[in-house]
Order: sequence, then structure tokens, then C-alpha cells
Amino acid sequence: MLADKLTKLLKHELKDIAHSTRPADLVHFGQDWTRFYTPNPSVIFYPDNTEQVQHIMRVAYENDQAVVPSGGRTGYSAGAVATDGEWVISLVRLNQIGDFNAVNQTVQVGAGVITEQLQIFAEEQGLMYPVDFASAGSSHIGGNIATNAGGIKVLRYGLTRDYVMGLTVVMADGELLHLNKGLVKNATGPDLRHLMIGSEGILGIIVAAEMKLIKPPPAQMVMLLSLGSLAAVMQTFENAQRRLTLSSFEFFSDRALKRVMAHRSLDNPFDDVHPFYVLLEFDEDEDAAMAVFEDGLEAGEITDGIIAQSLDQAEQLWQYREGISESIAEFTPYKNDISVTIDQVTDFMQRLDTLLVKEYPDFETIWFGHIGDGNLHLNILKPDKLPVADFKQQCETVNDHVYGLIRDLGGSISAEHGVGLLKKPYLSYSKSAAEIKLLKAIKNSFDSKGILNSGKVID
Amino acid sequence: MLADKLTKLLKHELKDIAHSTRPADLVHFGQDWTRFYTPNPSVIFYPDNTEQVQHIMRVAYENDQAVVPSGGRTGYSAGAVATDGEWVISLVRLNQIGDFNAVNQTVQVGAGVITEQLQIFAEEQGLMYPVDFASAGSSHIGGNIATNAGGIKVLRYGLTRDYVMGLTVVMADGELLHLNKGLVKNATGPDLRHLMIGSEGILGIIVAAEMKLIKPPPAQMVMLLSLGSLAAVMQTFENAQRRLTLSSFEFFSDRALKRVMAHRSLDNPFDDVHPFYVLLEFDEDEDAAMAVFEDGLEAGEITDGIIAQSLDQAEQLWQYREGISESIAEFTPYKNDISVTIDQVTDFMQRLDTLLVKEYPDFETIWFGHIGDGNLHLNILKPDKLPVADFKQQCETVNDHVYGLIRDLGGSISAEHGVGLLKKPYLSYSKSAAEIKLLKAIKNSFDSKGILNSGKVID
Repeated sequence: MLADKLTKLLKHELKDIAHSTRPADLVHFGQDWTRFYTPNPSVIFYPDNTEQVQHIMRVAYENDQAVVPSGGRTGYSAGAVATDGEWVISLVRLNQIGDFNAVNQTVQVGAGVITEQLQIFAEEQGLMYPVDFASAGSSHIGGNIATNAGGIKVLRYGLTRDYVMGLTVVMADGELLHLNKGLVKNATGPDLRHLMIGSEGILGIIVAAEMKLIKPPPAQMVMLLSLGSLAAVMQTFENAQRRLTLSSFEFFSDRALKRVMAHRSLDNPFDDVHPFYVLLEFDEDEDAAMAVFEDGLEAGEITDGIIAQSLDQAEQLWQYREGISESIAEFTPYKNDISVTIDQVTDFMQRLDTLLVKEYPDFETIWFGHIGDGNLHLNILKPDKLPVADFKQQCETVNDHVYGLIRDLGGSISAEHGVGLLKKPYLSYSKSAAEIKLLKAIKNSFDSKGILNSGKVID
Repeated sequence: MLADKLTKLLKHELKDIAHSTRPADLVHFGQDWTRFYTPNPSVIFYPDNTEQVQHIMRVAYENDQAVVPSGGRTGYSAGAVATDGEWVISLVRLNQIGDFNAVNQTVQVGAGVITEQLQIFAEEQGLMYPVDFASAGSSHIGGNIATNAGGIKVLRYGLTRDYVMGLTVVMADGELLHLNKGLVKNATGPDLRHLMIGSEGILGIIVAAEMKLIKPPPAQMVMLLSLGSLAAVMQTFENAQRRLTLSSFEFFSDRALKRVMAHRSLDNPFDDVHPFYVLLEFDEDEDAAMAVFEDGLEAGEITDGIIAQSLDQAEQLWQYREGISESIAEFTPYKNDISVTIDQVTDFMQRLDTLLVKEYPDFETIWFGHIGDGNLHLNILKPDKLPVADFKQQCETVNDHVYGLIRDLGGSISAEHGVGLLKKPYLSYSKSAAEIKLLKAIKNSFDSKGILNSGKVID
């Protein structure tokens, strides 16, 4: 859209909607946590309510104007990046928690409600919103739904999808959909709510949701174990799953631990250096926890361990895991967020390890992941002097090997980060041509002008 | 298709696939448990494997031939009825339980595996497949997925959707899709698996699935309570939900009880007659159960109660609930399978009761339902001498009132039975015009010739 046409729209049709064209705002709201693209939107809108989102979309639709829906911008796949003069619709003001219904155990939330805000609200009702991850303090519920966010407790509580009882969505032409409206049972044909979940803004803009809360579990216990080998990770998981009621089973490498210790000035939790660590959270049961530890020691799988003796210590142990992403952010990490079925994790990690040593001899690789659900985060750190574009290109060369392996195992090239712009070229490693064709047809049915998050996920 | 053309195809292109054109088979496999349509398919296929299903679809596609996918045919919305010369593809031979993976706790099943067969298989592994309902002994997993079946334990364990880790689907043109392949986390754009679940055969034919099994709960206890009023149902539910870990909370009326007693020659479990009953199943906790009972007695909500003292007695109590559908089958019941959000159930039941007395003065109405998830089954029994067509027509007149009330409450006109042919005229009471338009566009993208279960769900 020509600059003077936009200026005119902002002065007339869109004048009642808060917006900004200041360069600093364009940069800030024109990107997420992905660092491989130059933000270049033409305006940022901050609608105050659903009607304003509809109004913006009606005007955009009339003018064939591309828009980017924008949440907490904590994404790692450039799903919320605007690189080409798009209008960014920031949902940051739709941050109200609305009616709570104690009988249904559901609550109405705006798309801009922050994950942690919902977690705290749930606690205040004696309930729990169990979807949790490192960026919970800034990610939005709308964005969580648009990527079907997972995190560190999927093993026990599932994904964001499992908590969405209703969705309010603005379509490309400004039409409003109220999907499912909080019903537990509703067998009236294909459920568009479930098509919207994980659709990354290409089918519609999620403006509100009805979220389910659950009863909290009994008191939790946290244990950190050091392991001698990759094979020990899955063996320890299987034993822990048998003996304990697990909420989390998180894995990280010694390099990851070192980065967190340096970044947060933490002491090493162990006296010795070990190649791998797992962090377990589970329903309090000290005897069973000791049994897991002793079984592992005896089998030579576990080399050392710590059981948190207080909530404070539990939080401290979690820091070693939760601090990883932020500790490597300054290294412009190239993030592989990949998954296979749980039983394939050991085999996959070993094959991947061999591949990495061969293909990335000069790069530092940081591993961590959610072993209990088959999801690994493999981060390649950029060497200080290598230009970003060169680094990205070199990483992409290796992707063909990593993703080829994933395709062979029937895995996912994006377990929880979404596809966005960054993973789009690799979608065919996880989805067949027939599937992608169907997705394109659906996209075309929902957004025939291609104005909703255009160029993301699929072409 | 002309009869001689079909004969030719059956002799040549399709000769290797088991099929029947015997009138008895055409009637048997041309309908489900809905009794308002005359079955009239032209042939029944019994493919032995996925390749044969693909082959049938390729031939059907070339010939613009409508097909009806057919499972256990236990549906109540005529989703599997063939009235107009369709080819029925019965998935009855795809009844193999395949690989079980103990680490992933998943198992591969053919679409024709019977629900109970999977439940028993799970038990043999020390696990549980928790989706359960009265027709578990004959319904197929494929059909369960195609309608996102619910049942008597949704309150605790959710719907069929929650157990589908992967789907294999044959498309209209014979193309095969492998959706999700058992992954826990897979954020690669909109998830077609979730679009297929509940799509009632209009988008593709589900031929196989990977199903999740779970750890069984602790020992269960069963309690039957009699209640003095509709209002007491929800009050008892709220108290029970607070004090117990519920697996089921099922409601039925005295008329329903009487029908079951007559049909199964059972004694009345209580000395007196009460208007309503609820059956609870929950994690064993006799003290808490007694507290629920005593609270209710004191408040004048509960009038009597029985706690099962053995597994045998528990099964006996369940008979009063599980026997309802079969006890009224001979009366050609017109089934309303409706839901609202849980908090609206009392209000809804009271308004519905008033409506029924007014609109159905001459018909016997039988109520039961899954109170804990907002789902009521309201059955209208056909008077002996009234012709079926007249009865159906009279019921449909009342639908406008019942469904109007449901629309006002944002409820569902089909909570778990699906839409099929029978509920299609009423879809707009639960879905907006914009939603239905999108569903039609999706249908057209997946099946541009309209040969898959044509005329069902949407036009």
C-alpha cells in the first residue's frame, strides 16, 4: 500500500484505533524472538476490543492489505514477523481475564492475556492452568493457541489444545466466529476450533478464548540427576515413569548447564562434571524417588543426584533448566525444535549426536528437551565473528541432514515452535505433498486474498 | 450408476474385493441404528486392507460414484445410512489390533476394531482405554473417531479425540494420508488429524489409527442415589465433584428406570418410587461417599441411596443406566442428544421439562444423560399405532422449540451422536452461517465430486 494511502486511512477510516508508525515501534512490534529477519511493517495497531479488530480487517480486506497478528512475540519461527510493509495487529490490549465459571471450571480470556497471568488467576481460584514454559511471563494465550504451545509439563497435562473450550476468531473479511462456546460435548461435524488451534494466524485472528482450568496435583517434588550417557536418559525415564507420577522429565547437556551457570552466576549443583542431566518433577514420594536413584546408580546409568528439600531449592534446581534459552539468546542461536515418538528418542539422539559432530565441527551445540514427550531442542550457537546471514545459511545446509533423519523416523521438524517463515522451506520433511495441498486449499477457503499472515507456514 | 455398469465393475476392476449385492446384506449394511430411513445401497464392499479401500475409492472417483463408509453401524443420526444407490464400504474386516508400544503407550488399530476389543487389549497390558458407552460391544474405533465419541466417562477422561495419536485416511480420489504418526508434539501448521476427527466420513475414510492408552485409576466405587427434584441433580453433582474423584455422574428419570426393569426383568433397587436417579462412579473413598449422601439427605436433595459392596453389585447398579437405550429400542425412539455448558444444565432441564409437558402431552419421554459434561439424552417413544413417518414429523415440529432453546443457550443439537442425515436440517441451531459456509468450502476442497458420504452433515 502506498504511504499516502495508508496515511489517509489512518486519518479517516482507522483514526479511532490506537496505532503507531514510529520507527522504534515498527521494529519492536514487527518481530518476535527469531533473529534472522529485518522487521519492516508499515503500521502497528493496538485494538482495544474485538470490534476494532474486525474493523481493521474489513479495511485491510477491502484494500488487499496483508496483516500480521501479533501476540507476546516470543516465537522462534518468525510466525509474528512483518518483513514486507504488513499491518501488524498487536493484541496486547486484549489482556482482560473475564468471567470465571466455577461449575464449568472455565474462564474467558482475551488473546493478549499473558500465560503467567492466567496461571496466577487459576491459583487464586484454587485451580491450575498447567501449560507452562520458559516464556510464560511474556507469551500471550492467543499466541499459545495459535501455535498449540506445549512446554515442560506436556507429559502429564497435554498441550494448549486440551484447554481450549471455546474460541472467538476474526476472519480475513472481518467476520466473527464463535467456535464451540465452552461445550464439553459437541458432535456437530468437523470442529473448526481444532483447525484454528495451531494455525499460526493464517486462517483467522484469535481474539478471545474460553480456557479450562483443572484441580492442582498433590505436593510436588523435584529431583536433578546426572547421567553418564545418552542411553541412560531413556532408561531413567522408563524407570521413573514406572515408579513415579511424573509432571516433568527434562533433559539438558553439560554445555547447557555451563551456559546457565555463567549467565545467572550459579554454582555447579554437582561436584563433578557429567555429560547429561535430567530434571524430574513428580507427586511427592521420597521412597519411590530414592528407588529410581538407587536403581540408576546400581545400573551405572545415574552418576549423582539431588532431591530438593524445600520449595526454594526446587525452584533453584528448575533454574538450571529454565535458564537455558535466555542464557544462549546472545549467541543468535539457530534453533531446531524437533520431535520423534518417545520410544525413538535414544536412537534419534545418538544418530543426531554423530551427525552433529560430523556436520557442525566448528559450532557449539546446546541440547535440551522434553524427553517425556519426545521433543528435543537443539541449539546451534553463532560464532562471534560469523555474520548472521552466513551462519543461517550454514545451519540450513545441515538442516537437510537433520530433517532427513527426522523424515525417516516420521518425526516433526517443529515440535512446538510452529512453522512461521523460518521452518516453511522444511515443511515437506514432516507433511506429505497431499497434506500440504489440502492445507493450501483450506487457507484459500478461509482467506482467498491471502492477507492473513501471508507467506507463513505454507505459500 | 446403471446396474449393468456396476455388474461389469464388480466382474473386472473390483472383482478381487469381497462384496455382496444380496438383498439381506444391502439392508443390514445399508443402515445404522437410526430407524427413519429405508436402506438402499447398490453394493456392500468388505475390503481386507487399506490398499483395497484405496482401490475402491479410485474406481468410485473415476465413476462419480457416491460411497458410504460403514463401521459398527451403532449411530443414531443416520451417518452410516445409504439410501440412494451408494456403495457401502464396510470396514468390518479391518479389525486387527497391531503393534503395541509400551514406551509410548500407544497401539495401532484398524478402523474395524470394536471398542470393547480395544478396552480388553488395554487391560491385558495393564492399561486402560477409557472411552466407554453402551454400544462398546459393537461400535468400531473408526466410527468412534468419525463422530468423536464420548460416553459415560468423559467427565474424567475426555473424548475419543484425546486418544488419537495418529490417523490413516483414504481420500476421495484414493490418496492416502498418514496424519501425525503418533507424535505427542507436532506444531507444523493446522492439524488435519483434528479436522478428520468428528468429520463423519464426509472428508475421508479413516482406515487405521494409533490410539493412546493410559494407566488405570485406583479401585472404583459405585453409588446409586435417588433424588426428589431436577434441581437436586446439579446440587448433588457439585457436592460430589468437590468431595470425590468422579469418573462418571449419570442421570436418569424414573420412567427410564421402569423401562430397564421391565426389559431386563430387574427388581427396583429402591423401596419407593423417586422421580430421578444419579449413578456415580469414583475412586474408592467410602467416607467421602457417605458424606455426599448425608449432605444430600440433610439438604432434602437426596432421598435414598445404595453403595455397591462388590464388583458384582457395582455392575448390577450400572445395568439400570446402561440398559436404557436397549430397553426403549423397540419403541422407535426419536433421540435428542443435546448439550449445554455444565452450569446451565439445571436451568435447561427445567425449561425443557416445561416444554415437553406442553409440546409432547401424548408421547412418553425418557430422560437420561451425562450430567457431568452437560449432555442430556431425551428420547421420545413412538406410540404403538402411530406410523413412523407421522411420528418423525410430529417430533420434528417440537424440535424447533427444543433446538431454539438450545440455540439461545449456545448449546449443541448433537452432543455425541453426530449430524448425519437426521440432524442436518438443524445444524444452523448450533453453527452460524459463516461456520457452515467454511465447512462446505472445506468439504469441497477435500471431495470436490461430493462422493464421500454425500448429503450428510452439510449439503
